[in-house]
Amino acid sequence: MPFLFYDIMPQYLEIFQQALDKVKDEGRYRVFTELKYSENSSPKAFCPRLNRMITVWCSNDYLGMSRHPKVVEAMVETAKVMGVGAGGTRNISGNSMPIVELERELSELHEKEMALVFTSGYVANQATLSTLTKILPDVVMFSDEANHASMIHGVKDGRAEKKVFKHNDLEDLEKSLKETQIWRPKLILFESVYSMLGDIAPVKEICDLAAKYNALTYIDEVHSVGLYGERGAGIAQMQGVMDRVDIIQGTMAKAYGVIGGYIAGKKVIIDAIRSYAPGFIFTTALPPAVAAAATQSIRHLKTSDFERKKHQEVVSKLKEKLDKVKIQYYQNETHIIPVHIGDPILSKMISTRLLEDYGLYVQHINFPTVPKGKERLRITPTPFHTEQMMDELVSALSAVFKQFELPVAA
Amino acid sequence: MPFLFYDIMPQYLEIFQQALDKVKDEGRYRVFTELKYSENSSPKAFCPRLNRMITVWCSNDYLGMSRHPKVVEAMVETAKVMGVGAGGTRNISGNSMPIVELERELSELHEKEMALVFTSGYVANQATLSTLTKILPDVVMFSDEANHASMIHGVKDGRAEKKVFKHNDLEDLEKSLKETQIWRPKLILFESVYSMLGDIAPVKEICDLAAKYNALTYIDEVHSVGLYGERGAGIAQMQGVMDRVDIIQGTMAKAYGVIGGYIAGKKVIIDAIRSYAPGFIFTTALPPAVAAAATQSIRHLKTSDFERKKHQEVVSKLKEKLDKVKIQYYQNETHIIPVHIGDPILSKMISTRLLEDYGLYVQHINFPTVPKGKERLRITPTPFHTEQMMDELVSALSAVFKQFELPVAA
Repeated sequence: MPFLFYDIMPQYLEIFQQALDKVKDEGRYRVFTELKYSENSSPKAFCPRLNRMITVWCSNDYLGMSRHPKVVEAMVETAKVMGVGAGGTRNISGNSMPIVELERELSELHEKEMALVFTSGYVANQATLSTLTKILPDVVMFSDEANHASMIHGVKDGRAEKKVFKHNDLEDLEKSLKETQIWRPKLILFESVYSMLGDIAPVKEICDLAAKYNALTYIDEVHSVGLYGERGAGIAQMQGVMDRVDIIQGTMAKAYGVIGGYIAGKKVIIDAIRSYAPGFIFTTALPPAVAAAATQSIRHLKTSDFERKKHQEVVSKLKEKLDKVKIQYYQNETHIIPVHIGDPILSKMISTRLLEDYGLYVQHINFPTVPKGKERLRITPTPFHTEQMMDELVSALSAVFKQFELPVAA
Repeated sequence: MPFLFYDIMPQYLEIFQQALDKVKDEGRYRVFTELKYSENSSPKAFCPRLNRMITVWCSNDYLGMSRHPKVVEAMVETAKVMGVGAGGTRNISGNSMPIVELERELSELHEKEMALVFTSGYVANQATLSTLTKILPDVVMFSDEANHASMIHGVKDGRAEKKVFKHNDLEDLEKSLKETQIWRPKLILFESVYSMLGDIAPVKEICDLAAKYNALTYIDEVHSVGLYGERGAGIAQMQGVMDRVDIIQGTMAKAYGVIGGYIAGKKVIIDAIRSYAPGFIFTTALPPAVAAAATQSIRHLKTSDFERKKHQEVVSKLKEKLDKVKIQYYQNETHIIPVHIGDPILSKMISTRLLEDYGLYVQHINFPTVPKGKERLRITPTPFHTEQMMDELVSALSAVFKQFELPVAA
């Protein structure tokens, strides 16, 4: 679409405005809800825009570990002694003792030779997958269609050949593997718990296919580490196949309550990523205080089952309560409760009503986080949501659903 | 290079091993130096491998702000009240009050309508530039040849047409602009202070060319914010042209001593990036405690000139001392003192000798951080390096340079 740029800025600004208008027209312009937590308020927080306390029902701090006294203390004490920043990349003065310890903790958690920490789970996926493409000549990436944006980005970035298989569909995956030349390196990319559906991958069966077709396996466990498996090591461990997954990717930002991502696997693989991935090499390391908090959180959840059990109890109870009023949600065996709406404007209206009329924060999820037509609410209870809070939520959901003429029991 | 994968894992592992061997053969396998800072020890830290205290001469915590009492207190107090993690993306429960305040602080610093915080400066560049390509049809990116890996990644990722111009060379840039069709959107990408050379861009003159040829300007100020310009707003402000730069990118990880990156500019531009960039949308927000520390650091350096003055004094004094022993370094007007070595193995040997024999940590910089043949040491003094420390460094450098028969005064 060529056009003339004589008076430049107005022309440029118009393009940006058009891009914004498009998002707005599609009902998916995002207005972030500002939250101010105060001591012991969680899962309630103050919402400045509404000038009131609200109950947060959509946090990925699944176990509330971001406020665990031991975890907070680790950050506080480390910050006091070592400061608030790493001061450099890992190679240039940023390799603090706490980040080295964190990597040791993670490799021990997953029973792998080595772990590598990134600034986020997004960067861990993106940097690792694009780098794997460069290292493995002619690799074919077999990618579950529901994989997270960061994995898609990594594959696209590396410009590898990608074959998408139907979500959690072993037959489709096998068909695709079978059709691919035997001599080509293969990598199967999948998640253990899918963020927006909350369903679990057949990890064992995927590993079986990988063995049959000589493929490497790469699992994204960001929505399961800390939450499932013995010592919180995730779904692969729960299914007894952690040793068969070649690369495990995870995060410290969700159940562990802090920030940052990682990969774990054989030393030769992780060390190669460490040596080649620009997204790892050229970025400041996580602050020592952040790394120390993450290590403390992982350690705590290795031995404590209390949070996991309480979490599952709350999830079950809330699902029962939703069943009673016949509010439908995706059936799954995890802590994520997605409620299908199917329209971006309607999902936003429902979310807004819940927030403004009832003080309940349940974020609506629109494109590009979910496909168009799959808009939903995503409810994530924590161990700290009380029975009263659950009743308030279910009653408010019922009322708002009725208001918008969505199916709900009388 | 097709080959058969019958017994898969050994074959795969061999490829990874070959990738690692390549790095090792080229003398650029990286061994990170672990550092354990203790209270008030900085710029000295304990090195576990050597079991001794060492003096760190290569931190990008340029002003030591990561240990400033006010900054540490901001992290500590915020962590105690709000926890150690954000709990979600900005859209899904991660939009904490401190991160909103941080963006306000940044937009005020750069006198722009809006700022947007990313998890790192790397992600800020990568995500913004790849997104700009998608928003601006047929854009041509004019990129300084010395630009940082994250900018190169962003341009490559967006698959925009890229025209590289010679480092800080206005003639070459103008030639390239002139040759490009007038109707095409144009974006000039450059840094203000180049990390590995320490030299300063002619920001004003680049803005003049941008105006002449109807191009947008994008400046990476990560090595200058906090350090230069009134209130630490950077080089563009120092040269009096901050209002003429369309997008300013910066970091909280260097002079501000924390972590995270950002962009600032007109609302319509920044809001469009906010609405489209996957690297922003799909990642957990910076923890409130991290955002609060960053805000405090920026605020402090808006009013305090003490750190900047002391910093420049130490830099000048060290350069004088180096001049006296005739150790050559790249001439520049900044705080970065690069000493050319020109060989990856030699640079590593020098760095190792300084560390092991003298307890001085001056990281050697090899490919891919600098081009092959341009290997160097990179010295970055802080306000807290004493005269005695400088003398130790210069004397050790002299001794090691003599040992390796590099030019140095007798």
